[in-house]
Amino acid sequence: MTADDSVKISTEVMVMFYDTDSGGVVHNIAYLRFIETARTLLALKMGMTFEEWHSTHVFPVVVRTEIDYRKPALPGEKLIVNGRLSEVTGVRMWFDFEILRPSDQSVLITCRQALAMVNTSSGKPQRLPKEIVALAEACSHK
Amino acid sequence: MTADDSVKISTEVMVMFYDTDSGGVVHNIAYLRFIETARTLLALKMGMTFEEWHSTHVFPVVVRTEIDYRKPALPGEKLIVNGRLSEVTGVRMWFDFEILRPSDQSVLITCRQALAMVNTSSGKPQRLPKEIVALAEACSHK
Amino acid sequence: MTADDSVKISTEVMVMFYDTDSGGVVHNIAYLRFIETARTLLALKMGMTFEEWHSTHVFPVVVRTEIDYRKPALPGEKLIVNGRLSEVTGVRMWFDFEILRPSDQSVLITCRQALAMVNTSSGKPQRLPKEIVALAEACSHK
Amino acid sequence: MTADDSVKISTEVMVMFYDTDSGGVVHNIAYLRFIETARTLLALKMGMTFEEWHSTHVFPVVVRTEIDYRKPALPGEKLIVNGRLSEVTGVRMWFDFEILRPSDQSVLITCRQALAMVNTSSGKPQRLPKEIVALAEACSHK
Repeated sequence: MTADDSVKISTEVMVMFYDTDSGGVVHNIAYLRFIETARTLLALKMGMTFEEWHSTHVFPVVVRTEIDYRKPALPGEKLIVNGRLSEVTGVRMWFDFEILRPSDQSVLITCRQALAMVNTSSGKPQRLPKEIVALAEACSHK
Repeated sequence: MTADDSVKISTEVMVMFYDTDSGGVVHNIAYLRFIETARTLLALKMGMTFEEWHSTHVFPVVVRTEIDYRKPALPGEKLIVNGRLSEVTGVRMWFDFEILRPSDQSVLITCRQALAMVNTSSGKPQRLPKEIVALAEACSHK
Repeated sequence: MTADDSVKISTEVMVMFYDTDSGGVVHNIAYLRFIETARTLLALKMGMTFEEWHSTHVFPVVVRTEIDYRKPALPGEKLIVNGRLSEVTGVRMWFDFEILRPSDQSVLITCRQALAMVNTSSGKPQRLPKEIVALAEACSHK
Repeated sequence: MTADDSVKISTEVMVMFYDTDSGGVVHNIAYLRFIETARTLLALKMGMTFEEWHSTHVFPVVVRTEIDYRKPALPGEKLIVNGRLSEVTGVRMWFDFEILRPSDQSVLITCRQALAMVNTSSGKPQRLPKEIVALAEACSHK
């Protein structure tokens, strides 16, 4: 696995009724669950663990989301979520996501999120682990 | 306030798009959020507090739900949720709920839930507070 | 595939942060999403399709849920949801579900749901498809 | 009511367990439900109706969200969501939101959303109603 591979993830999801609304398509909030699943699996791949988050009370916390809704997904459709760590700036890790519909090759969603490692007892963001900074730098040099 | 009043609650909710699905009506899971809101406000009215739950790690935990879906609610409708403590058996508090649509007087949902006070560190149910048992007994004698 | 296999499903899910609450364990409502995913995949396996549901406006609608919460699941845990069509009575299809934690073989959740095929334009339950009734009978004879 | 008042809304919400996660604070996705409630009530105040949305199949659709998470909210806290129509550009209506905690006057969340009126049958955005454009212009002249 190259450094680049280790900061990328691709997940699949099938749209359920609870993801949709009475407009007939996927509700805007549901896509953020799809993205959280991809982001969490990527964090695990990058070496983080749920056990460490809970024992240290230092959790990855979303500090900013930018999301563009380009095309709607329908109930029952199979979607792909691609995510990657794109940059580290100070205490922020930036991730890029896109949600694709393979059946017609369309890009439905593009999204960018910044996360910080926050001690939820004190509310303070922590310095990012050296391993994460190193991974981000290895990728941005390409 | 009589003993009976202190174990009853009535809340209002307007159906949002995120409560519905592509079938055009409220999704079955959304009603359980409406009921949780009513149940939580009732617990506060009965003297419990979020602070105590978190400081003791003893939380009210749903151990059983029975829910009947009688008629569907539509996006934008205003609903009423009525809830009350109906009985205490051992470590279980039983609550009854109904969700009404005032505009045509229909009963959309009936629901019965059992909760226990569980220490989430140990996973063990705790003896119910004397005040809760007393409230339940005061009401059941009517 | 035997008749029995065709009315059974087994799905996997990893618990995400959005499935949990501040009590530290999976929130009671989240399990019903896990069950809906299994139930929907089972309906597809039994020959139903999202296209048919939307073109006919006849949807599988939950009319009753009974769910028992036996043990809590933690963030990051991998769970198995087993579901099967257990019985058909009039316009109701009954499904049984259990949610297991393979790591310690525990049964966390048992659940029973009745669904009807409802025309959401008229609100009326429809007669069940002959194929479904036949499948249910083939299994119950075992 | 001045033109300015008619494009503003303020709503209250109490944080429920289902809004939180095992990190102990409100989950990032839950704030978007709080914002959707405020935005929907504002749309109704501006003259739109659920009936018209469903009869015309032209729905207000979120096309972009930008949200900054500044401070976390805790279970049981009472929050205020303030929203207003800030600008109209082509087929996009831009709304600004902030979520406040009155108890210590903090701003927890700031958010900006663009919506379009989309015919969900054709997927095409529609020209905005003249009344909405007029309201936006009346306010921006101040």
